[in-house]
Amino acid sequence: MTSVAPLSSAAAEQAIERQSRLTKPAGALGRLEDAATWLASVQGRCPPRPFAQPQLVILAGDHGIARQAGTSAYPPEVTAQMVANFVAGGAAANVLARQFGARVRVVDVSVDAPRDYLDTVAPEVASGRIRRGSGSIDREDAMTLAEATSALALGAVLADEAIDSGADVLLPGDMGIGNTAVAATIIGLLTGTAADDVTGRGTGIDDDVLARKRAAIATAMDRARDVVDDPTALLSRVGSPDIAAMTGLLARAAERGVPVVLDGIVSCSAALVAERIAPGARGWWAAGHVSTEPAARIALASLDLVPLLDLDLRLGEGTGALLALPMLAAAATTLEQMATFDSAGVSDRGE
Amino acid sequence: MTSVAPLSSAAAEQAIERQSRLTKPAGALGRLEDAATWLASVQGRCPPRPFAQPQLVILAGDHGIARQAGTSAYPPEVTAQMVANFVAGGAAANVLARQFGARVRVVDVSVDAPRDYLDTVAPEVASGRIRRGSGSIDREDAMTLAEATSALALGAVLADEAIDSGADVLLPGDMGIGNTAVAATIIGLLTGTAADDVTGRGTGIDDDVLARKRAAIATAMDRARDVVDDPTALLSRVGSPDIAAMTGLLARAAERGVPVVLDGIVSCSAALVAERIAPGARGWWAAGHVSTEPAARIALASLDLVPLLDLDLRLGEGTGALLALPMLAAAATTLEQMATFDSAGVSDRGE
Repeated sequence: MTSVAPLSSAAAEQAIERQSRLTKPAGALGRLEDAATWLASVQGRCPPRPFAQPQLVILAGDHGIARQAGTSAYPPEVTAQMVANFVAGGAAANVLARQFGARVRVVDVSVDAPRDYLDTVAPEVASGRIRRGSGSIDREDAMTLAEATSALALGAVLADEAIDSGADVLLPGDMGIGNTAVAATIIGLLTGTAADDVTGRGTGIDDDVLARKRAAIATAMDRARDVVDDPTALLSRVGSPDIAAMTGLLARAAERGVPVVLDGIVSCSAALVAERIAPGARGWWAAGHVSTEPAARIALASLDLVPLLDLDLRLGEGTGALLALPMLAAAATTLEQMATFDSAGVSDRGE
Repeated sequence: MTSVAPLSSAAAEQAIERQSRLTKPAGALGRLEDAATWLASVQGRCPPRPFAQPQLVILAGDHGIARQAGTSAYPPEVTAQMVANFVAGGAAANVLARQFGARVRVVDVSVDAPRDYLDTVAPEVASGRIRRGSGSIDREDAMTLAEATSALALGAVLADEAIDSGADVLLPGDMGIGNTAVAATIIGLLTGTAADDVTGRGTGIDDDVLARKRAAIATAMDRARDVVDDPTALLSRVGSPDIAAMTGLLARAAERGVPVVLDGIVSCSAALVAERIAPGARGWWAAGHVSTEPAARIALASLDLVPLLDLDLRLGEGTGALLALPMLAAAATTLEQMATFDSAGVSDRGE
């Protein structure tokens, strides 16, 4: 068990009280008001400020289930190709990070490509490699227990490095063909949901592949029912190195008292595991959006997190978390800058 | 009938084609992809650009129904007080406009306050005054036909002035105690929906006031069933000068070929009328968000517009439209800046 930094209930209460004095009907800013309270609680100040240095950490890894069980619409080679695309700045996450002022770090945790595939252009990307690819979780373990432990530790180091270099909010991003099948398996197990109900179309699979994916997830879930209460064993059995690293990152951020904006189904699956490792960590997280993957909504409900955006996104990479940044900034600036009924001479309803 | 500028179907088709070549699964950016297509169609270019000069026009007016039928949680004096707050820059709309780079203009169309209430601080605000307040539409006309005609013309002038000063997108904002009752009446009539189903809690009324509001809206709807097909008569009978001005603004923007981001229930009601005056105008509009007022969702469905945001907002002022600006910018920048499968050497699913 990791102990989580305390949230500031005092700042949260100040935010709620201040909100009630602003020149608007009570609650009229909806989820922005809840977001402002959350910002106050994680920043320990009221009014809170827009985040100054968001850090997106994209964790890339391949998943044997895609190749062995055929659960994806895209070939596994795409994972490595997309890592190169992140390095070159051409992916959606890069574009949105530039627009909303976030730094981007890409880490090859378990890409199924030769170790030197990026050595000439971006050697730092490969420094986190835990293993090449992962086992097909419907028939074999994703990785060893030792590898799962290493991946969790890698995530903690990545969180530390981001925080120590000045990041005041972390955004977990994912890239990996087959990762929605693994994430759905974890979410199904940790929320007690049937395989049929957690399986989605990922990158856009047809009905035949969907049926294969459902069956593979059901088999994988059965392989790990006895280790549901052991996060490391669960990740080793039916997780993946990249999701284990994301889990470590989420738990470590909460331990350090740094907030996180969650993205789609993959970060939701890691969040469920991280909450088991570091109970209360969810208080440090905001849900940037809810993806179209059914398991994402199930996981967020289980974590009691209400997503800010619902844009029918299903891209991952941290894109939904990045898009939530201007909403969070708006939550902070309205609470900070709006006039109060008193200061503006506006009559409140009670008068 | 006003004729609407043609949308660029060529640019829209280019956007859809370009979207299909970007390094992401088809459709993975969800509503941002639809927004990018819309931006291309209204800008006549692909890729489209983020809007450079958004202009918020807040139309303020009082509504006799609030005072006479008691449909609001706030006293009518708040409308004039909030106009002063807009002028001072302290309202939510001001804060969000600063954050997202929009200009703000406030116009007193029909505030129920002495004409000189702002003369010392902001005489330009009062230059649009059509009349002081409006009739309580459950028992009398909101205004004369001549006043409705003048208000529609005022809105057209406001659109022209914004466009001629360089605005490339207009955001209609509203301020007026009682305006949700009037907007709901219009939406009920133009969508064939019962009073009970269009009535919402506005600024936060209790069950007693809600029952009064429902009854007043039902009575008002009955007063105007014979003029549903005559926009000017409808606005005169059960509308208001501010909503008529907003209608004129929306129709004129479409005539000029300038896009609009709609806000909440009030702009949705004006949009329904403007679409009658200028058929096809809705093609020039995006729905920034859907408010918690039930009639807003009904109106958007009738206009076949899918809202970008759903943040439980119920503030008006254009706040929901302002919050959509960064989402629209993200739609434009991803379409413009993302790498293609070819340029990034990423395998598409078809390969």
